[in-house]
Amino acid sequence: MKLRPFRLSPLLLASAVLVSAGAAAAQQAPKPEQLIKWRQSNYQVIAWNVGRIKASLDGSYDKEAVIKEANVISAIAGSGLGALYTAGTETGTGWHETRARPELFTDKRVAELSGDFVREAGELVKVANGGDPAAVKQQFGKLTKTCKACHDDYRAKE
Amino acid sequence: MKLRPFRLSPLLLASAVLVSAGAAAAQQAPKPEQLIKWRQSNYQVIAWNVGRIKASLDGSYDKEAVIKEANVISAIAGSGLGALYTAGTETGTGWHETRARPELFTDKRVAELSGDFVREAGELVKVANGGDPAAVKQQFGKLTKTCKACHDDYRAKE
Repeated sequence: MKLRPFRLSPLLLASAVLVSAGAAAAQQAPKPEQLIKWRQSNYQVIAWNVGRIKASLDGSYDKEAVIKEANVISAIAGSGLGALYTAGTETGTGWHETRARPELFTDKRVAELSGDFVREAGELVKVANGGDPAAVKQQFGKLTKTCKACHDDYRAKE
Repeated sequence: MKLRPFRLSPLLLASAVLVSAGAAAAQQAPKPEQLIKWRQSNYQVIAWNVGRIKASLDGSYDKEAVIKEANVISAIAGSGLGALYTAGTETGTGWHETRARPELFTDKRVAELSGDFVREAGELVKVANGGDPAAVKQQFGKLTKTCKACHDDYRAKE
């Protein structure tokens, strides 16, 4: 009996390539734990800068510092944090157990709240560049309201 | 015997006010654990964005995304991270045990390396706005060299 040379059908070959590409992508995709760590880290950095702006408003105002701090908040707000809320990250532990509530992943209102946050953070950068502490205090209030709006409904109580 | 009314000398009074202000500041000052969490969070956010820029350079280039990602890195770089390396944070655990080496807190060269990082991150924002992937790749290389320069000497091996 003569053995036939092994021939791969074009369809099978294409499938093999696709599976292989899929496997490579899956290998590169960060694990849920890492994604949750990143989102917790982003909010920690925001919190650090919010706290520093508050300290400046409550104490002796530092215009240049507040501009830099507002820049960080605005840059992070606009950086596409939604990419860190992929399927599979609804529950889990990053640096600590996620406090994201299930509705955060399903409610259409979240996009609107997220847009409010981005807009008010951008506005704070503009006002901070103006250098008037009273105006910064007012805009800072508008910004932290957008934080609270989301936390109230979409972050589990501690 | 007639009791003299208690009189506080101006010097004592001034000292009392200073001590009280100092105590309030000490109360408000974040604990070393929190400071270490914040610095680890800042570097996690930088790493996330460095990874996304690399993915854009290795895959299909997304100009608008890279601008946003570079903005975050540059804003954080320029935000005064040194404030998170106060006395008492040389060792300790934030999200994990700090990998900062003791020399990071004493070597004068650190300020220079830190300046390199801020400068190259700012340059990346400019180049990203130009939108030429080859130029971004080159500048991205310059930036990550400044990361490595500091890690090589001042971050403990894992």
